Amino acid sequence: MNFESANFFKPGKKIMVLGGDGFCGWPTSLHLSGLGHEVTIIDNFSRRNIDNELESNSLTPVYPMGTRLNAWEEMSGQFIDFHRIDIAVEYEKLLQIVNEKKPDVIVHFAEQRSAPYSMKSPAHKRYTINNNLNATHNLLSVIVESGLDIHLVHLGSVGIYGYGTAGIKIPEGYLDVEVQTETGERLKKQILYPTNPESIYHLTKSQDQLLFFYYNKNDQVRITDLHQGIVWGTNTNETSLDERLMNRFDYDGDYGTVLNRFLMQAAVGHPITVHGTGGQTRAFIHIQDTVRCIQLAIENPPLPEERVMIFNQVTETYRIRELAELVSNLTGAPIQYVPNPRNEPAENELSISNDHLLSKGLNPITLDHGLMQEVTMIARKYAHRVNHAKIPATSTWTKEKQPGVYDAFSK
Amino acid sequence: MNFESANFFKPGKKIMVLGGDGFCGWPTSLHLSGLGHEVTIIDNFSRRNIDNELESNSLTPVYPMGTRLNAWEEMSGQFIDFHRIDIAVEYEKLLQIVNEKKPDVIVHFAEQRSAPYSMKSPAHKRYTINNNLNATHNLLSVIVESGLDIHLVHLGSVGIYGYGTAGIKIPEGYLDVEVQTETGERLKKQILYPTNPESIYHLTKSQDQLLFFYYNKNDQVRITDLHQGIVWGTNTNETSLDERLMNRFDYDGDYGTVLNRFLMQAAVGHPITVHGTGGQTRAFIHIQDTVRCIQLAIENPPLPEERVMIFNQVTETYRIRELAELVSNLTGAPIQYVPNPRNEPAENELSISNDHLLSKGLNPITLDHGLMQEVTMIARKYAHRVNHAKIPATSTWTKEKQPGVYDAFSK
Ligand SMILES: NC(=O)c1ccc[n+]([C@@H]2O[C@H](COP(=O)([O-])OP(=O)(O)OC[C@H]3O[C@@H](n4cnc5c(N)ncnc54)[C@H](O)[C@@H]3O)[C@@H](O)[C@H]2O)c1
Ligand SMILES: NC(=O)c1ccc[n+]([C@@H]2O[C@H](COP(=O)([O-])OP(=O)(O)OC[C@H]3O[C@@H](n4cnc5c(N)ncnc54)[C@H](O)[C@@H]3O)[C@@H](O)[C@H]2O)c1
Repeated sequence: MNFESANFFKPGKKIMVLGGDGFCGWPTSLHLSGLGHEVTIIDNFSRRNIDNELESNSLTPVYPMGTRLNAWEEMSGQFIDFHRIDIAVEYEKLLQIVNEKKPDVIVHFAEQRSAPYSMKSPAHKRYTINNNLNATHNLLSVIVESGLDIHLVHLGSVGIYGYGTAGIKIPEGYLDVEVQTETGERLKKQILYPTNPESIYHLTKSQDQLLFFYYNKNDQVRITDLHQGIVWGTNTNETSLDERLMNRFDYDGDYGTVLNRFLMQAAVGHPITVHGTGGQTRAFIHIQDTVRCIQLAIENPPLPEERVMIFNQVTETYRIRELAELVSNLTGAPIQYVPNPRNEPAENELSISNDHLLSKGLNPITLDHGLMQEVTMIARKYAHRVNHAKIPATSTWTKEKQPGVYDAFSK
Repeated sequence: MNFESANFFKPGKKIMVLGGDGFCGWPTSLHLSGLGHEVTIIDNFSRRNIDNELESNSLTPVYPMGTRLNAWEEMSGQFIDFHRIDIAVEYEKLLQIVNEKKPDVIVHFAEQRSAPYSMKSPAHKRYTINNNLNATHNLLSVIVESGLDIHLVHLGSVGIYGYGTAGIKIPEGYLDVEVQTETGERLKKQILYPTNPESIYHLTKSQDQLLFFYYNKNDQVRITDLHQGIVWGTNTNETSLDERLMNRFDYDGDYGTVLNRFLMQAAVGHPITVHGTGGQTRAFIHIQDTVRCIQLAIENPPLPEERVMIFNQVTETYRIRELAELVSNLTGAPIQYVPNPRNEPAENELSISNDHLLSKGLNPITLDHGLMQEVTMIARKYAHRVNHAKIPATSTWTKEKQPGVYDAFSK
């Protein structure tokens, strides 16, 4: 096997991937296992259960975990261990497996990650808050209780930054500000970027950030928090090896991110539905680059006693209508503008630093190069599996839509 | 009955007090009921159960809720309704009672509020995170689901500000900063003060603040968040009317705040134990002023669509050793310096704005005037009830104490 990333090969780290059955977690687990690391996946299958609840499905087939792991062992000769644990609830089980495995690194994907799902109903809001905050806090507490020096790599979201702010380029986590002392002196300081989460889901990521700040300060836990953009693309080098290793492709109104939804709509002859004017600017990254970035984060841990490292894991920004045009050009599908269910500005600029990952040598896959493959290899190929009822986005942000506050910087 | 605050009398508001069996909640409930408001108390008695767990007790007798409410009806002729509900867990019950009562105001005290308790063990950390965040989030979700225009008054803590910052006077919630745009322009902005919580307990208050920011932005919930200092004193005008109405006086190492612990130590002939050098500066407020401040908050709600109102509910700051000297002078007890179990700087300055409550006419009770009454009427009177084993503070912040980061403003 010839992994593209073989030149980074430093095998033998013990790595736990929490949420390793999910869209980002599965390809990450294979990538790290392929690099020769000893990987253990933890997942509670809540994402598969949510498919049942929503009566929706991945466009691509998602095989049972046992089948996935056997296929991987067949293809790569590598063994991945798996434990079904709800990390938000089963604290003792998580502690036990951490004490047993003594991981060098834990990659934490295990959260409810859909903004629309988090806004569906009070019960969905409560589930998202409860699941995500207890998941992250339990993990931090386990790391401290284990007494091990574990590097925690967490996936955050650029959605906590809000919609871009009055010409400020969004920094990697920390913002330079000037404040005035009581005696009128001006001080230059650096603070956590004041967040303006877009949904209950994003709110949990802002709150996670405070958990990390605290545990890093009080217990010197080493943490890298990757504020990720919208991940597009389906397969990586490893998941492409066999259909049984195939990754999820969510297209429904709740879990399908914007690009997947456009691709699927085009493939089944539905017009491409743009919310509002499509002037919203969003940040993107390809799934292949996600797994590389996680590898980079693992290979460049913060020093002991260093503050939380925060990086923006995005490679491009696009306006939604530009994206729609891109897909329309590739497929011939028409574009349709529909009312926006979200509380957000019609148009926004977004400028985000991503110097860190570029400085580490990432050579990103861009939308205008990689998109055609998604059209032919995924959307068209699996179009027969689509459930048409699941195409519209039905979760709204408020009962009657209200004007939102779009800026954490008031005044 | 002649309530001192009778001139504020605007009776007839429907007010729910969550955590109304607690140290602040009970006197607040009586005060608001005495003003002629229709009060409903919600509590799950978790604080009483924690006394059982810790094998500790209030120095003053705390009567059962039924006895308390009957005594209040006898003394004042006013009825207070009570429901035992765990607001972090029993969402549907909370929703039902809110839909029934249709409160104008909900005062939210119902959180685990001891910093040392929150640091005792992983289980205590997890309980505090889980209880406090779900309690606050459930309440916000209930308010939105009810569709009622309810003013939420929450008790936060000045402990989220950290230990004072390089000469910056801590503002009431929002900090003025200057930031630079991508094109080099300087912008004046106002942001939520970047918090630096002192413990897991305080962390939950920082996270609550983000919940409030979000629900105010997305759902226009009207919220006042009162960042309170350490509350001292035991009784108010109303709790003094009858022994059955008496308020809690916590003196143990976990729930006893610094002043109560000093008073109790002096009363039982134990030296006054100061942690570290006693150079830590802390902010204080008397319980009688707490209940008045809550009344002020209720009478001055934010406008619809206004951002979260944040005020600092403190009236004085003292260094711990000054406080020890004050108690030593009043009682003759000697002072003893012991190692500090907390991660905090040995000495800190603390300058906190409290313009709002002063502008609303609060005339504070000061420590040098009110303290003698606590010595004679509480500490000496009930000294026979003390459990000597509970005097030392045993919760430590880390296994081996580490140097902490004392400043949310790094660099
Ligand atoms: N997909 C994106 O576009 C995107 C963008 C930015 C950030 N992220 C972040 O990356 C992470 C992974 O996202 P994803 O797209 O792979 O989501 P996903 O839902 O496909 O995967 C998450 C996995 O975590 C598991 N999980 C959830 N709660 C759990 C719990 N309590 N215990 C054990 N397992 C649990 C789920 O079963 C699922 O397999 C999330 O934290 C998400 O917020 C994703
Ligand atoms: N006492 C202080 O010095 C002080 C200082 C600053 C802020 N505060 C804040 O004021 C509030 C009240 O503090 P206190 O000193 O009265 O504390 P307390 O522990 O005496 O009272 C809290 C009450 O809330 C109840 N409660 C807790 N969780 C609950 C739940 N899930 N459902 C229902 N009831 C629940 C408890 O049983 C208790 O009666 C807290 O939020 C605290 O953080 C207190």
